[in-house]
Amino acid sequence: MIRQAVIMAGGLGSRLKGRTEAMPKGFIEIGGKAIVEWSVQKLFAAGVEEIIIGTGHCSEWYERLAEKYQCIKLARNDRYAETGSMGTLACCAPLVHGDFLLLESDLIYDSIGLSVLVNSVETNVILASGPTKSGDEVYLQTDDNGYLVRHSKNSSTLTRIDGELVGITKLAKKTLDSMVAYCLDHQKDQPKMEYETAMSAVSSASPDAASKIHVEKIEHYAWREIDDESHLEMASSTVYPLIVENEKVRSVRREVLLNPGPATTTDSVKMAQVCADICPREKEFGQVMEWVASELSLMAGAPGRIETVLFGGSGTAADEVMISSCIPDGAKLLIVDNGAYGARFAKIASVYKLDFEVHSSSGYLPLDVAAVQKKLIDGAFTHFAIVYHETTTGLLNPVPELCRFCHAHGITTIVDAVSAFAAITIDMDRDCIDFMASTSNKNIQGMAGVAFVFCRKEALEKTRLYPMRNYYLNLWDQYEYFRKTKQTRFTPPVQALYALRQAIIETKIETIEGRYERYTACWKELVQTVKKLGLEMLVPEAHQSHLITAIVEPSTPSYSFDALHDLARKHQFTIYPGKLSDANTFRIANIGDIKPAEMKRFCGVLEQYLHSIR
Amino acid sequence: MIRQAVIMAGGLGSRLKGRTEAMPKGFIEIGGKAIVEWSVQKLFAAGVEEIIIGTGHCSEWYERLAEKYQCIKLARNDRYAETGSMGTLACCAPLVHGDFLLLESDLIYDSIGLSVLVNSVETNVILASGPTKSGDEVYLQTDDNGYLVRHSKNSSTLTRIDGELVGITKLAKKTLDSMVAYCLDHQKDQPKMEYETAMSAVSSASPDAASKIHVEKIEHYAWREIDDESHLEMASSTVYPLIVENEKVRSVRREVLLNPGPATTTDSVKMAQVCADICPREKEFGQVMEWVASELSLMAGAPGRIETVLFGGSGTAADEVMISSCIPDGAKLLIVDNGAYGARFAKIASVYKLDFEVHSSSGYLPLDVAAVQKKLIDGAFTHFAIVYHETTTGLLNPVPELCRFCHAHGITTIVDAVSAFAAITIDMDRDCIDFMASTSNKNIQGMAGVAFVFCRKEALEKTRLYPMRNYYLNLWDQYEYFRKTKQTRFTPPVQALYALRQAIIETKIETIEGRYERYTACWKELVQTVKKLGLEMLVPEAHQSHLITAIVEPSTPSYSFDALHDLARKHQFTIYPGKLSDANTFRIANIGDIKPAEMKRFCGVLEQYLHSIR
Repeated sequence: MIRQAVIMAGGLGSRLKGRTEAMPKGFIEIGGKAIVEWSVQKLFAAGVEEIIIGTGHCSEWYERLAEKYQCIKLARNDRYAETGSMGTLACCAPLVHGDFLLLESDLIYDSIGLSVLVNSVETNVILASGPTKSGDEVYLQTDDNGYLVRHSKNSSTLTRIDGELVGITKLAKKTLDSMVAYCLDHQKDQPKMEYETAMSAVSSASPDAASKIHVEKIEHYAWREIDDESHLEMASSTVYPLIVENEKVRSVRREVLLNPGPATTTDSVKMAQVCADICPREKEFGQVMEWVASELSLMAGAPGRIETVLFGGSGTAADEVMISSCIPDGAKLLIVDNGAYGARFAKIASVYKLDFEVHSSSGYLPLDVAAVQKKLIDGAFTHFAIVYHETTTGLLNPVPELCRFCHAHGITTIVDAVSAFAAITIDMDRDCIDFMASTSNKNIQGMAGVAFVFCRKEALEKTRLYPMRNYYLNLWDQYEYFRKTKQTRFTPPVQALYALRQAIIETKIETIEGRYERYTACWKELVQTVKKLGLEMLVPEAHQSHLITAIVEPSTPSYSFDALHDLARKHQFTIYPGKLSDANTFRIANIGDIKPAEMKRFCGVLEQYLHSIR
Repeated sequence: MIRQAVIMAGGLGSRLKGRTEAMPKGFIEIGGKAIVEWSVQKLFAAGVEEIIIGTGHCSEWYERLAEKYQCIKLARNDRYAETGSMGTLACCAPLVHGDFLLLESDLIYDSIGLSVLVNSVETNVILASGPTKSGDEVYLQTDDNGYLVRHSKNSSTLTRIDGELVGITKLAKKTLDSMVAYCLDHQKDQPKMEYETAMSAVSSASPDAASKIHVEKIEHYAWREIDDESHLEMASSTVYPLIVENEKVRSVRREVLLNPGPATTTDSVKMAQVCADICPREKEFGQVMEWVASELSLMAGAPGRIETVLFGGSGTAADEVMISSCIPDGAKLLIVDNGAYGARFAKIASVYKLDFEVHSSSGYLPLDVAAVQKKLIDGAFTHFAIVYHETTTGLLNPVPELCRFCHAHGITTIVDAVSAFAAITIDMDRDCIDFMASTSNKNIQGMAGVAFVFCRKEALEKTRLYPMRNYYLNLWDQYEYFRKTKQTRFTPPVQALYALRQAIIETKIETIEGRYERYTACWKELVQTVKKLGLEMLVPEAHQSHLITAIVEPSTPSYSFDALHDLARKHQFTIYPGKLSDANTFRIANIGDIKPAEMKRFCGVLEQYLHSIR
């Protein structure tokens, strides 16, 4: 698993003259975007969690980039004008923790190159291509096993040419350390050293294959390094369009899901499912699950406070985990039912024959907090279960207020946050939530298949001795087994977990606050159109979640949900009917990888349909 | 969803002279394989369930191909010499049931072209490429919206050239019908008609976009039609190597899992997870689930006899479904425990406080059938649960014999066939199995995440009124809801279901008998080496399943499972320790997409390790 990338971006780019006097080469734009930003996006999409950029010349440009992208770290090489790229790489080295990708900043490239390196059996791999005729080739010579022996810009100094250096490499931390050591050893005779020199030296001197550097060649690889004006011209006119076409043919048809989950996903989350087969009991998969669980925990509360327990299943499975595992015998549970998911809590509690009562409330009017509080006290309830965001209607419940009240009265709180988590900022300590359920296919924007239960540590610890009411969905056993072995009790949905890992990477880049802003911008587009068209919304605007909007169906006799649905599908939008028995609605969810412009396009379809029936 | 493909292979191939006098063009070999066989394999890998080949000249070659590949149907055009390709297509038309891919038989092509067509928003799509300079181009002209207007081999007859026809097309059944009608209408004036003529005519005459034919162009597409010697030369020397490279860079690193599941999968199963986002409550996803369930049912019994109920979860979830949902109050259950999975049955029964007894038996000695039978009668048991193939040791239990006995005595039978199904041929009626559990990630060779319970219909019907002991894992509710709505009660693992669909396609092609033969060939390689190396196997050879082999660890003090594991991993093999408390073993599973040559390679690694410690 490659978790980090290093981009070397210290150089002056002097061959590009005017263009790069006051700007690093990486900020040359092709296709309307800085080439280094293309690279950053491709790296994150390839599953890199963190990018370290070694800066020098005009480093302030990179400081701005690091503000835009969480998960970029900078390492400045103050002596960039004298050291060459190896000096910049040496400045990055202390931040590198394991196998990583190493890139030059002035490249445009087809993203397939990254997956070839990530996929390679070899630990150290240089990506090479067939002849580019760029006029600035770095030729590579390998031994008979394909390991790097020598490189040169002058082909006549090599006994054979096995490819051209692209400037994208996968290296082990150990190999990097050897390169840094080589650089220090030769500081006197080679004060200015390029990283290729150190690579060739380390590879050819290495006695065993494990630390040699393999050359992996893609004969017809679309890439260009941009060192001068002629490169830039060729990159823009020929190579960039080829890259765009290659990446487009590998992309997936865009369908925008406006149903309340599973949510629309990025292509990179989809592709994260495609990985080498692995036994989930292998240590490296345990590390993936551990990373996933701990990153999810950090999204639900302060560091060290929350444990996330993963299950193979849907959001309902996570709800059942909580109801069946977090309530001891003799407890008394109050469930708020103001929609399908509150009702589901009650159904589960009845299956397990728990002692519970239901507080029913309208699905679209705000919950009467005082009434719930009174009932909690009068009924001497020990446990309280509520849905954070009723997916049925898009009604946001006053969960922090009620849960704080519960904690003040010693009542344990159980929250279904299936469609709230990762869009609404939640801190389980601050909000006094003991147990909380969510799933991989809602706002976190992963694939369906993984359910998770977040637990405040003390609350979780108490469940140790609670009666075991089922097996597969038991919280304590699942937690304890994973804690001890770094394996799940039963085969987990391996590929959905890899997708979830990628979804978490992308959530960290966007941030939960940023995601909520984007969702809100989509919701605003929708609400504006809904009002313009004279449609009625079920939930008062102030109590809407901005995530799901229930719209009352027009009373026009010619209205048909199916006709609207089918028209929307034709335009690549999927909508979903309401779920209330006492109001005819359809629902528009704007969770998932949806852009406001797409919501605007959907609004156009909605408008078109309504005009057609009026 | 594209479920069928049609390959037009009726033609004489007269420009290839001697080569194709006694052989259809499709059987010209490139890269050691007939080009039509490459195409067939790429189509199945792209998710096509059935291929219809329109034959004519030397059709007996295709008859042999259809014997090799289940899921190929043939339609012979007796008048192939006179009709042109449209005549052959018309012969195939009655076998086409929906949207389909249409290909010429004499093509080599990059498989990405198929996914571009499958992925396209448009229903009717012709694949086009940039200039090939093949000397035999068919040029396409489109309107301003990219729909086909005209085609010609003579570019001067077109007002503009928008691409070259590749010979791969996606069409709706309706469009095909229009083409056939056009062909019939023009039988007199155009007795010999090529299919392109009918396509251009239908597209340009069509009043609405839905039945026009869109041209989708990949500028740099690797493909070649082979009509003469110069094409064949160019295809072999230039195009084929490019296709191989393109497909290789998109492939996934090969890791062979010798652990007892999840099993090794094909790249096509991995890629089947990558599909356009879809709401699982959409009708077309309901059809996918229905197809998956009904195909699984056909693998477990006679048509119409078995219902397969799908759950999101692991094999253990399916076991828990059976134990919690298939046993009424007042029943008495006997569980055979001769390994970890029998013990798990007992654990689940105890959690639900069922009235049960355990018949314990050695994990590696054959079960004493008479003793079990005696206990069943003496104890007046009503239900019997057993593991078909104990994954712990690779011991095959005499399930048909015991279940037949049970049925003769009115005892309901519950079988964990998690690691038996899809390798061992099972007929639940013949074998008297009422309920049977398996999972997507074992012998069916799909991805982890889907559990299934197979039910004999009468047995399932009886569970309708059984007590509901949990919610998520309840069999009757899950069955009934899907039957009524073609939706699952809760969000299913969508992508794992698409992968399972692909895995079923591949299982049908191989057949379960063929799969068992391949597994057995792998097992023989292993057993031969184990004996040669003087290692001991835990289970007597006659009782081994041929699926998993438990090997007693060598007593050499320097032996270390971890060292063997790590060496194997370095060679891309994953092995797994034993699970028995009373014997030190390691286990080699040969389930999944593993070839005997790979097992041989692993045997070499095992040998190397043992030599190193002796």
